This record gives sequence, structure tokens and C-alpha cells, in this order.
Amino acid sequence: MAKDKRTAFFISDGTGLTVEAIGHSLLAQFQDQHLEQVTLPYIDSASKVQQALQRIEKAASESGLQPIIITSIVSDQIRQQLHQSPALMLDIFENYLTPLASLFNRDPAQSVNISRGIADSHRYNDRIQAVHFAMDNDDGRRTSGFEQADVVLLGVSRSGKTPTCLYLALQFGLRAANYPITEEDMDSTNLPRILLPYRRKLFGLTIDPTRLVQIRQERRANSRYASKEQCDFEVRQVEQMLRRAQVPFLDATQLSVEELATRLMSQAGIERRID
Amino acid sequence: MAKDKRTAFFISDGTGLTVEAIGHSLLAQFQDQHLEQVTLPYIDSASKVQQALQRIEKAASESGLQPIIITSIVSDQIRQQLHQSPALMLDIFENYLTPLASLFNRDPAQSVNISRGIADSHRYNDRIQAVHFAMDNDDGRRTSGFEQADVVLLGVSRSGKTPTCLYLALQFGLRAANYPITEEDMDSTNLPRILLPYRRKLFGLTIDPTRLVQIRQERRANSRYASKEQCDFEVRQVEQMLRRAQVPFLDATQLSVEELATRLMSQAGIERRID
Repeated sequence: MAKDKRTAFFISDGTGLTVEAIGHSLLAQFQDQHLEQVTLPYIDSASKVQQALQRIEKAASESGLQPIIITSIVSDQIRQQLHQSPALMLDIFENYLTPLASLFNRDPAQSVNISRGIADSHRYNDRIQAVHFAMDNDDGRRTSGFEQADVVLLGVSRSGKTPTCLYLALQFGLRAANYPITEEDMDSTNLPRILLPYRRKLFGLTIDPTRLVQIRQERRANSRYASKEQCDFEVRQVEQMLRRAQVPFLDATQLSVEELATRLMSQAGIERRID
Repeated sequence: MAKDKRTAFFISDGTGLTVEAIGHSLLAQFQDQHLEQVTLPYIDSASKVQQALQRIEKAASESGLQPIIITSIVSDQIRQQLHQSPALMLDIFENYLTPLASLFNRDPAQSVNISRGIADSHRYNDRIQAVHFAMDNDDGRRTSGFEQADVVLLGVSRSGKTPTCLYLALQFGLRAANYPITEEDMDSTNLPRILLPYRRKLFGLTIDPTRLVQIRQERRANSRYASKEQCDFEVRQVEQMLRRAQVPFLDATQLSVEELATRLMSQAGIERRID
């Protein structure tokens, strides 16, 4: 814990991923604040809350600044214990379970880790199969799997196809293949013939050539592959190819993998396979 | 929208992933309720809110049940428009930005998509490199990359290594390699010699053999690979190997990929590389 730096704690009885996401998006609205951000997952017993409380008090006394807690603990008892801390408490469950309970006219289950993971083996299988599908159909090593694909991503090397495909698989259970447009494909601005049978599944990624140079430089510094001319040429050719064949596409330059995946789905009208 | 089925809408001006995660964890506390769950991402203009409102009103009138909205819209104006709906409104930003604003003594930025993605090219590079690292160091095809790994996952085929490595890369920017323990490695319960230099990076996954049979059956039905005897044998050998070498491990049977990744990190004391 740094001096004069306020700490925000994201505290969960599970993975912590949800409160962390909430915390990031709330705190992003106050960018001028220099905050230490600490996730404490699996806080699911009295002794673990006790340890967390000590850590929070330490942060408060060392910095002289009131810490922030964003929490989604399900158990009333553990939550009450956490509320003893001197921090500003943003308690997701406390604020939202009450209105839901009165709408449904029943008490919340108060059980951690209900749903998901546990025995939800259908969801697990779909995900795992989608991940292996993405791995097996990456970088155009083969196109035989394209028949089973929900989407086939096209773009120049390092335009973000692989992470997007993997994210689509992990988060949404989608079967996403990808095909890199290589120099051989760029002799013309026609779609590579091998892709024609999958025309309706195609989705393009493009990228600002200057950004592409940066990314490729990190991979192969000072190579022709990473040169400005080459990146300019490839991006221009691929954009023409996509426009000409009327393949929908996104510019990946300013987008995170999450944004690419979700925008692609809404633009192409692709529905998730898992919740 | 099904009749007699209440609809929960997760509405965001961004990807919708955060409100969706909050929604899932809140609604998981009321498992007996049959709910239609609909995510509406990128609701960032008056006309898009209008469309969303129509959809919500339709759900209300068709089912005769008050819909639920869980939302994290940043703009005051768009949020107020959404508040005209007849739904039960759980508004993350409204409830939490106010206390944060008074703690920080300034107004929230009210800008969508601040941080992340946009120009956060360091984070993007780290992630993309971690993803390619996981792809290149999957399934023990080569061990030369293990030197650079943050963690090397061990386990039998289809114990969940690959999705866990990819998740560690995408979510936390960690360089996660994996090594499948194959039959050749099972002649003894010693660690494969090739792994000895990376001993301190090793982390094991095990799995209930009955569950493993199910997963392998989906891959190669009625094969020796998917047989009960074979799965029993492999799991037993690998667990002995992990115990003997004192490699920490987790049982993947009941855990989601998110849980495997986060538990592994806390058990092995591995810190994330990206926020």
C-alpha cells in the first residue's frame, strides 16, 4: 500500500471477477484519482474476512485516506462482519437483493457459487469444445472445420483475430475460426477462392497501419513484415477485398478484445451459445 | 419473449459484460424463477434507448410480469430516458457514482468507454502476447517456451489445461504453458524429466475419472482413450505423480474455467500482469 494513495478493495466470496469489473467501470469515471486496486477473492469464512479487515485497516492508516470496498458477498453474516470496516462500502448484493426478493416474493438463497461451474457440465462442454475448435481452426492451418464455424474471421496477420476467436469461444461458446490474409492472397482484391463456400460466415478485422507496425515490431523488429510499406500495403489490399466482397468488418485499432467480440456479434447478428 | 416468463434485461452503453455478470450472480440467488435473460449492449443514443424501451414494454405486456432492468449506463440523459420504463430498475451507476463522487469531491466523467481498449496499447500488447504464448506452448508441442512461462499446467488430456491457460492469458495477461501427461510419462510416478528445470512453475489439474470419461466420450466415443479403465489409470498415476513431486494441484471437476484460473493464482501466489 503506497502512502497518500487510496486503496479500492474488490471483495468477493467467489472469483472476484464481477466486482472487479464493476469496480473498474465505476472508478474509470474518476481517472484523476490515483488508486491502488486490490482484488480479494474467495473471502468466504469469518477468518478470511478478519484477514481482509486487517489489510483494509492497514491501508487506511498508512495512507490516511478512507479505502473503498466494492463487494458482492452473499452470506449476511460475512457481509455484516465486513461492514465493520472504516471503508466506503459499495455493497452490490445488499442494495439489489432486497428489491429482487420483494419482486419475487421470496428470500435469496444465500448460497455462494450456485449455478455456473458446479455440475453445469453442458455449459462446460460447450465452452471447452468451442475453445478447442478455435485452437484447431486458427491461422488458416486448415479450412475443413469452417463448415462447423459460427463465424470465420479474416484479416492481416496480427490484426487481433486469434484473441477475438478465443474470447468468443470462452465467453459465448461460439465456434470461431480465423483465416489470415497472406501476401499470396493479395495478388488480387478478390476473396481467396477457398473462402467462397463460407461467404456468409465471414467477418473482417482491419487495423490502422501505424498501429500494426507497432504490434509487428514487437514480434519481429526491423523485419519487412513489420515495415510501414508492408503494413500499408496489406491493410489497403485487405480493406479493398472486404469492401468489394461486402464482408462486414470492424476496425480493431481502438477496441479491446471484449469490444471486438461483442460488436462483431451485434453487427453480424450472431447469438451466443452459452449464457 | 415467452408467455408467463419474466424478462431480465442487462442494458449497457458498452459491451454489457459487466452488467450481465452482475445480473447472473444476483439472479442465481433465485433459481426457482424462470427468467428470460436478454443483454442489450451499446445502448448509447436516444434512438437506441427508444428501441430498448419498446422491447421492454413488449416483454411486460406479453408476459403480464414486470421486467427487470440491470443497467450501467453512464450518461445521465440516457439513463433518465431508460428510467421511464415500467421495469424494476437496478441502476449500478446511479447508486454507486454518487457516493464515490462525494468521496472524491468531484463529478464523474460521464464518458463511456473511458480507459481500457482505447489507446491502452500496453495492456493490449501484453494480452495479445500472452494469448499467442499460450497457443504456442499448448499441449507440450515444445517446452522451449517454458523458460518464459509464469506457470506450466500439468494434467491428463482433457482435464481443462488449455481453456485455463487461455483464460489466464486473456484475463490476466499471464504466460501460461501446458504439458499433457501422456501414457509414456506414466511408466513411473516420477515427474517427466523434461519438466524438472521448471519445477517451481508447475501446477497440476486433476479431475474425477467418471467426468473425464464423459468429456473424452464426446471427443472420441467408444475409444480406449475414453474408457473407464484408461481414465481411472491416468488420473491415479497423475495424482500420485503430483503428490510425490509436491506439485500443488486443483480438482477441475466442479470448477469453471474462471474458478480454476483464479484459485490457481491465489494458491500459487501468482500475480496478474494486467489490470
